[in-house]
Amino acid sequence: MQTTSESRQVKWSAAEKKAARAAFELALSREMVAIRHEVEALLKASPEPTQVWKVLDYLSGKQRELDSKYDYRYSVLIFVFGRLVGERWLSEAELGKLSGDKLDLIKRMAFRYQDAKSGAR
Amino acid sequence: MQTTSESRQVKWSAAEKKAARAAFELALSREMVAIRHEVEALLKASPEPTQVWKVLDYLSGKQRELDSKYDYRYSVLIFVFGRLVGERWLSEAELGKLSGDKLDLIKRMAFRYQDAKSGAR
Repeated sequence: MQTTSESRQVKWSAAEKKAARAAFELALSREMVAIRHEVEALLKASPEPTQVWKVLDYLSGKQRELDSKYDYRYSVLIFVFGRLVGERWLSEAELGKLSGDKLDLIKRMAFRYQDAKSGAR
Repeated sequence: MQTTSESRQVKWSAAEKKAARAAFELALSREMVAIRHEVEALLKASPEPTQVWKVLDYLSGKQRELDSKYDYRYSVLIFVFGRLVGERWLSEAELGKLSGDKLDLIKRMAFRYQDAKSGAR
């Protein structure tokens, strides 16, 4: 796949690495806030003690998802950002300090990601 | 171990089975209420989104603990009640419909359980 080899060969400047790290942490902190809200919503949804098992299932799934999604290796970071933009945890504007070629790759991945999600419905 | 072989050979009357089931469910429902309270206390203890991982660790541990503890087989039920009385999820009085020999075994196990817990401190 062309995009794969392109994205793996990308070089990151010091300034880009700094911007990438900040964007990565921003997306993760947003997703963590959303996860906490969902946990609280699950508990509010029912006073049953056994509702905690729904919380456990939800958090177990999210832990697995985040472990695979938030992979800060430069060899895969374009994919990671593509997914995070596709899932709307980051906007393209928030990656504005990255070079144009990186942003193009990220947008293409984000688009596929949105596409894949629509297709799954 | 003498107690082990005694407890495995115990016979349960229909009335005892009914009382045992009710006591078992009572202990489980109490423990579930305590687990939900602890989850809510963990969330109240910190507004940090990452606090949800403490909830996950706690619930994962409790799920494993309950899976092994609440084993409703007559061959092990004396042990189960011994542990539940030892951990104070049930009182001896709540098992009052069981025969005296069963209660004696349960008390002996409960005592060991309390002892084991004290020793671990």
